[in-house]
Amino acid sequence: MLELYHAHISTCSQKVRLCLAEKELDWTGHAINFARGDHLSDDYMMLNRNGVVPTLLHDGRPVIDSSVICEYLEEQFPRNGNPVMPASAYDRAKVREWMRYIEEVPTTAIRYSSFNTLFIDAFKQRTPEQRQAQIARTPLRKELYKQFGKTGFSDDAIASSKERLHQALERMDQDLQKSEWLAGAFSIADICVLPTIIRMEDIGLEYIWDEFDAVQSWLSRFKKRASFNMAYYEGARVKPGMTNILGGEE
Amino acid sequence: MLELYHAHISTCSQKVRLCLAEKELDWTGHAINFARGDHLSDDYMMLNRNGVVPTLLHDGRPVIDSSVICEYLEEQFPRNGNPVMPASAYDRAKVREWMRYIEEVPTTAIRYSSFNTLFIDAFKQRTPEQRQAQIARTPLRKELYKQFGKTGFSDDAIASSKERLHQALERMDQDLQKSEWLAGAFSIADICVLPTIIRMEDIGLEYIWDEFDAVQSWLSRFKKRASFNMAYYEGARVKPGMTNILGGEE
Repeated sequence: MLELYHAHISTCSQKVRLCLAEKELDWTGHAINFARGDHLSDDYMMLNRNGVVPTLLHDGRPVIDSSVICEYLEEQFPRNGNPVMPASAYDRAKVREWMRYIEEVPTTAIRYSSFNTLFIDAFKQRTPEQRQAQIARTPLRKELYKQFGKTGFSDDAIASSKERLHQALERMDQDLQKSEWLAGAFSIADICVLPTIIRMEDIGLEYIWDEFDAVQSWLSRFKKRASFNMAYYEGARVKPGMTNILGGEE
Repeated sequence: MLELYHAHISTCSQKVRLCLAEKELDWTGHAINFARGDHLSDDYMMLNRNGVVPTLLHDGRPVIDSSVICEYLEEQFPRNGNPVMPASAYDRAKVREWMRYIEEVPTTAIRYSSFNTLFIDAFKQRTPEQRQAQIARTPLRKELYKQFGKTGFSDDAIASSKERLHQALERMDQDLQKSEWLAGAFSIADICVLPTIIRMEDIGLEYIWDEFDAVQSWLSRFKKRASFNMAYYEGARVKPGMTNILGGEE
């Protein structure tokens, strides 16, 4: 039995939902409510000491970290649905190189614009004590929340995060000129970067890939996969004006 | 044939050297000289577009990113030397959860004190134009180099990085009270965090694990493994007063 603790709009939850759909696996969902602080509750942090979503329970045993969960699903269910990792060790290394880059560059960069667009109103409504209490309880990325503060990230921080997103898209475009998917065949690398790209679309940053034709074709190919609509069900994408989400990490 | 482009004192190179030693694999080394800018040369960046060390060449084909290289070595040479990944998918997920945390928290945190101790003199000697030229050419972590600038990281940034190192050691200690190695059996998780711990020792931060007995026992167990002396040969550890290393990323 597969249970997923996730949040509808969290990009890391979206990665795992995409992977579950590609592997054609049934799962039961437990929605984490950031505003209520579910992700920082004692019960949840017994399963996930990072205090972030998602967490997979497989027959009651937890697995955390979205990219780790994706590899786990492939290794546990190699014959279900579509393969999301290649058969040869060298090709797997190429997928993992992409995964590491995605984790270090676009996944961290999107948080800046994402927070400034989605969380700022909710953060402004909190007292400094409430904000400090949440930061103190946050196991990962305290620094990021301190920087975010009450007024959001600075213009400089936003500009620099957009520069990193541009670099990531440029690199994607280079590889997508050579193959339909990032690391040859469709893989966890494509799954791990898609939610960042969709978030960019949702908050008005799609102009960054204007010049990257191969990325545009990749994106429209991805949107035609069955997994896309399964992971991005109604309510799973953020919308303009949706600015009152309370500081959930993803 | 295995060839390793590496730097003697780079923590990420040390991870791969530890892994090669555990797997009892022969390799040929190509030392990268940061001061000469080898890591940002066109030839090297054809192999590693991140412009960082290490890069493994296996029969001429490159694999990059230290943690990716370690998993690759295990998958290509499962019967050589010691296993560094467990046999079951669930146990492998536990190793990878640790790897992801190590990549996000201690590996990034140690850069602050490390840069301030090791690179500052060399950076001061450069003109602003020289510094900017290097930053412009750096594919990863431009932001970090900008922050570092000429005077090094601020006291606040250093304090916060030490807080993250403390958290990582506390978490290590919790798990090491339950088993001799981070994720049960000896694994890539232990390999990936060791160079951060050794660097802390070398630059005077070992007081941070004063209170963590299980970490201390783990460290002395690790130092008795044959791989330790093979990865940390003469000249591979930094020493007090070694402050003139030019801005190499690792």
